[in-house]
Amino acid sequence: MTRPALMTRHPFDEAMALAPLAASTEERGPEAPGHFQGAPHPAYANMVGPFGGVTAAQALAAVLRHPARLGEPVALTVNYAAALIDAPFRIEARPVRTNRSTQHWTVTLMQTDAQGVDGVMLTATCVTAVRRPTWSAVDAPRPDAPAPGQVARPPIPKRVRWIERYDMRPLTGPMPMQWDGSEADSLTRLWVRDEPPRPLDFPSLTALADVFFPRVWRRRARMTPAGTVSMSVYFHAGADELAATGEGYLLGQARAQSFFNGFFDQSAELWNEAGHLLATTHQVVYFKE
Amino acid sequence: MTRPALMTRHPFDEAMALAPLAASTEERGPEAPGHFQGAPHPAYANMVGPFGGVTAAQALAAVLRHPARLGEPVALTVNYAAALIDAPFRIEARPVRTNRSTQHWTVTLMQTDAQGVDGVMLTATCVTAVRRPTWSAVDAPRPDAPAPGQVARPPIPKRVRWIERYDMRPLTGPMPMQWDGSEADSLTRLWVRDEPPRPLDFPSLTALADVFFPRVWRRRARMTPAGTVSMSVYFHAGADELAATGEGYLLGQARAQSFFNGFFDQSAELWNEAGHLLATTHQVVYFKE
Repeated sequence: MTRPALMTRHPFDEAMALAPLAASTEERGPEAPGHFQGAPHPAYANMVGPFGGVTAAQALAAVLRHPARLGEPVALTVNYAAALIDAPFRIEARPVRTNRSTQHWTVTLMQTDAQGVDGVMLTATCVTAVRRPTWSAVDAPRPDAPAPGQVARPPIPKRVRWIERYDMRPLTGPMPMQWDGSEADSLTRLWVRDEPPRPLDFPSLTALADVFFPRVWRRRARMTPAGTVSMSVYFHAGADELAATGEGYLLGQARAQSFFNGFFDQSAELWNEAGHLLATTHQVVYFKE
Repeated sequence: MTRPALMTRHPFDEAMALAPLAASTEERGPEAPGHFQGAPHPAYANMVGPFGGVTAAQALAAVLRHPARLGEPVALTVNYAAALIDAPFRIEARPVRTNRSTQHWTVTLMQTDAQGVDGVMLTATCVTAVRRPTWSAVDAPRPDAPAPGQVARPPIPKRVRWIERYDMRPLTGPMPMQWDGSEADSLTRLWVRDEPPRPLDFPSLTALADVFFPRVWRRRARMTPAGTVSMSVYFHAGADELAATGEGYLLGQARAQSFFNGFFDQSAELWNEAGHLLATTHQVVYFKE
């Protein structure tokens, strides 16, 4: 699909715009590789701070833009240490070990608070690798589902901005209609893609891994405060497979395995329309009660 | 169960022995919190370097012994950057953000090679938290299985030492008997506990999360080289639940979802005999062909 030449930039691309920085705020020297300034994007605002999927994508984008980067992402883990404020932040992506075909990264996102104190807001680790063709198989087949065009798109709740940036078409396990405490399973399935459509890349796939509302809301029909503390994304596709997916929908599926004393887990899968399992993802989420 | 008072120390406890270190090898000052010296333990030797589960447990042990540590582990991610040599290493565990009830950690494991060059061998992040009692539920029930005492313990292959440190009783999906390339599913279920028995704690649970042989061996009956590059462990139990588990067996289950161009994923669950889901764990594993 060809885009009009003068179309405005996609909000996701605006969010991924990172400006190179010197190695520390004291230094006035040349740019240091892997040091960037970014900011929460208003189009991806959440109830408190920005949508975590986009922050994870920004951490990955810092790795991908490092001039010494080897290969493509295989595994990314982000830990959400504190809620970002609506102000610029600094990301440092550092290659701590480069092997023949794999590379290990640490990423730190820092922000200065209203009192002028620097704080770590997010830590991340990433493994990138130069993949070679090998025997491959998808052992988690994509669930059967009607085509995205045949699934209604429900009205978008206007509580948070970032929801508007995704075209989500629920297949199973939508947000509860009544918050009446009735227990259900924690499974949600949906078709999803960027809104407006945008060709898939590793950062946008990372953000899509976090589009599922908190499983405890589904499980209990009870809207308790909840927030992800750690998320891992495993990539099972290379740039070619993402390019082949293009602006197509992904089928996403998420469910929990355990809720225990303030934290639950969530595991999810993202397939493209052709059935390739592009990513599996796991997270631990705080919940209040 | 009471232990004889003069029993020798358990090999796992020997492996977890970390000696406090000064903050850097140049410093001769007092001990720095979170800096430790450790070493691979010969009883947990793998084909190349030590069993990765024990190395992950050592990284967690460094966090747990930090005097500023808040609460109990909720999430741990370790990235295996290079194979450890059979020599001492240094671990630094650093609390990078302490909130009211959660704390975020980064961990680095460094080793000096034969040429005297320091290298990062492992990176990790950890979230610890003070849990409060909340509504809780196990949504992934423990599979039915005969009691551990009714399941035969197969002879232990003598190829690697660490296997001898676990009492593993396969229920489903054992190591292939014939490496004939015949495809199967990737599911393995087993009863497992430390050998000799040892009361469960967070480090030993971490090591147990990594006892499953590479899924590609099961899936293809083909013994290709394989090694974990990143592993996350989510803890769904507190110290009380681990104490209640004691020296009992865990039911472990592992399977893959995707094998793609040199890497596959593995997701696993560990329940105690009473059916509490103690941990869920996920990893990405390199495989050669």
